[in-house]
Amino acid sequence: MPELRKDPILGRWVIISEDRAQRPREFYTTPDKPDPKGCPFCEGKERLTPPEIFAFRGRESRPNAEGWDVRVVPNKFPALRVEGDMGKSGRGVYDRMNGIGAHEVIIETPDHFRRMEMQDPDSLGKVFETYKLRLEDLARDRRFKYILIFRNEGRMAGAGLTHPHSQLIATPVTPKRVKEELTGAMEYFNYKDRCIFCDIVAQEIDERERLVHENELFVSFCPYASRFPFEIWVLPKRHHVDYHSLRHEEMPLLADMMIVTLGKLTKALHNPQYNFILHTGPVRWPRKGYWTTIESDFHWHIEIMPRLTQIAGFEWGTGFYINPTPPEEAARYLQEVEL
Amino acid sequence: MPELRKDPILGRWVIISEDRAQRPREFYTTPDKPDPKGCPFCEGKERLTPPEIFAFRGRESRPNAEGWDVRVVPNKFPALRVEGDMGKSGRGVYDRMNGIGAHEVIIETPDHFRRMEMQDPDSLGKVFETYKLRLEDLARDRRFKYILIFRNEGRMAGAGLTHPHSQLIATPVTPKRVKEELTGAMEYFNYKDRCIFCDIVAQEIDERERLVHENELFVSFCPYASRFPFEIWVLPKRHHVDYHSLRHEEMPLLADMMIVTLGKLTKALHNPQYNFILHTGPVRWPRKGYWTTIESDFHWHIEIMPRLTQIAGFEWGTGFYINPTPPEEAARYLQEVEL
Repeated sequence: MPELRKDPILGRWVIISEDRAQRPREFYTTPDKPDPKGCPFCEGKERLTPPEIFAFRGRESRPNAEGWDVRVVPNKFPALRVEGDMGKSGRGVYDRMNGIGAHEVIIETPDHFRRMEMQDPDSLGKVFETYKLRLEDLARDRRFKYILIFRNEGRMAGAGLTHPHSQLIATPVTPKRVKEELTGAMEYFNYKDRCIFCDIVAQEIDERERLVHENELFVSFCPYASRFPFEIWVLPKRHHVDYHSLRHEEMPLLADMMIVTLGKLTKALHNPQYNFILHTGPVRWPRKGYWTTIESDFHWHIEIMPRLTQIAGFEWGTGFYINPTPPEEAARYLQEVEL
Repeated sequence: MPELRKDPILGRWVIISEDRAQRPREFYTTPDKPDPKGCPFCEGKERLTPPEIFAFRGRESRPNAEGWDVRVVPNKFPALRVEGDMGKSGRGVYDRMNGIGAHEVIIETPDHFRRMEMQDPDSLGKVFETYKLRLEDLARDRRFKYILIFRNEGRMAGAGLTHPHSQLIATPVTPKRVKEELTGAMEYFNYKDRCIFCDIVAQEIDERERLVHENELFVSFCPYASRFPFEIWVLPKRHHVDYHSLRHEEMPLLADMMIVTLGKLTKALHNPQYNFILHTGPVRWPRKGYWTTIESDFHWHIEIMPRLTQIAGFEWGTGFYINPTPPEEAARYLQEVEL
């Protein structure tokens, strides 16, 4: 018998259809061949990108030259533009504004072939530190309401280049999905006086059957109402609204969490394509007539979505997902993977 | 300069990025080869499906034999099951229920090669009449809150078989996206005392630049805040909450609308893969503590979503879409197509 499960934050129902269950092998796809030829993100090709915004680099090295560990550059084909005013206007029932925003690329390593899970905790810690620094910097721009950091791994997941990189988009509006998540968490908080994500973390650590990895500060698990086979969420155990409240010395622990979690995923599913998205608090949020930040009723986290199944019309049009792999089964496979 | 546009019903913002604009030719994909070998939906193969639930067939013909025009059968691999009770329960923060529902296939024609837009208004009218009859029949089952009718054209769009067919899923919960649309329309109605869809139809007919096709009863256009290149919505000009309030004699006009709209899309984009979804009022909707139907603040319609671009992490995780083709441009291409 299939089961309907409800995401406790968004209220989204998912069909978990065990009858159609598939083993990891059945999800294997052909991974992209990493091709460094002409890659603008490789060390030595710094001139092929727009001038860098930020970099972790050796003391001797100069900007836009070799000798860096992590490098941030503007997206050459940005979805949104930094210069200009909002130009909000309406026509009849419709509203519009100028496409103001920032669109940056975080080049995670000078080495074309070093996938995220192949890094060590210290080097990957620098990437996560970079996320924090860019978030803090862009949060000062009063036009921006939300800053999105995400990663597309593989062409099916939307990546244009195979060199390991993340992206950042700062938007003058709060994206709809983020707004729903914030509202869901807020309603739970108003009702229970507790954070729903803290309650979820406690229940997952207690039940263990959906856990993937756990360290001192973080936990990863396949969410109860997973939309996709092998979907994984990564949460800090301690309650923090904003990603950028993570301290410098905690970065290697986040790096360890991602190296193990992505490492298991990569091994179990044979280099799957995936997206991950950092869900952090908005930089400006309307409350009682003011733009403010959120105090306590959100909890930052990362959602990893492997791209294994074809999403059909049903899912698109309704937000109602059919998942052929129960999260308990996905977690069992991932638990058994040895790195 | 890219533009941000807001969907007036859902409040979803979309980036319309003209710089990246692509001509229809750039979206061409290889269409699936229709393969009738072993197809269980072809005439003469009726024994390969579960026994039929409904059919339009000649007076002389017997159920589950040849001689039909449209045939409805249960899905052989249903996502939800018809038998059983709801078995609602919770564990900690999580809620679940049994996967109760109906999952049916509407076989649109006995001819494997007759795509929807190749039908004539009378024969396709029978398909749309079938939608209505199945909706009315399943609405009687008190366990169901919503009935979804949708169509996946092509494997990339999630179709398992190439024989022309639609699908129906009746669910014991209202899908999230549908709920949001109902709530958005309701809020507008409470504020303006008018239906937002009626206002949209009036503005589109007046401005004409996004129109695709218009007949006595229906209009199709590329929506102002299109998520995807060549997205098209089809609406009845007269206000009706429920699809099944369409009368028998109006079906050929809906058929004409779909034949022309899909015909233009097919010709402009070279047999693209697409999904369409019928958005109709829920069969049961909670209001003031009762389950009721909706009286006036919704307006049924069909949303057609061609599958031309790869959806990346950004879109998945945020509900924030980047569309490289302004709807005005898509509509201009479609207006120019001669059938």
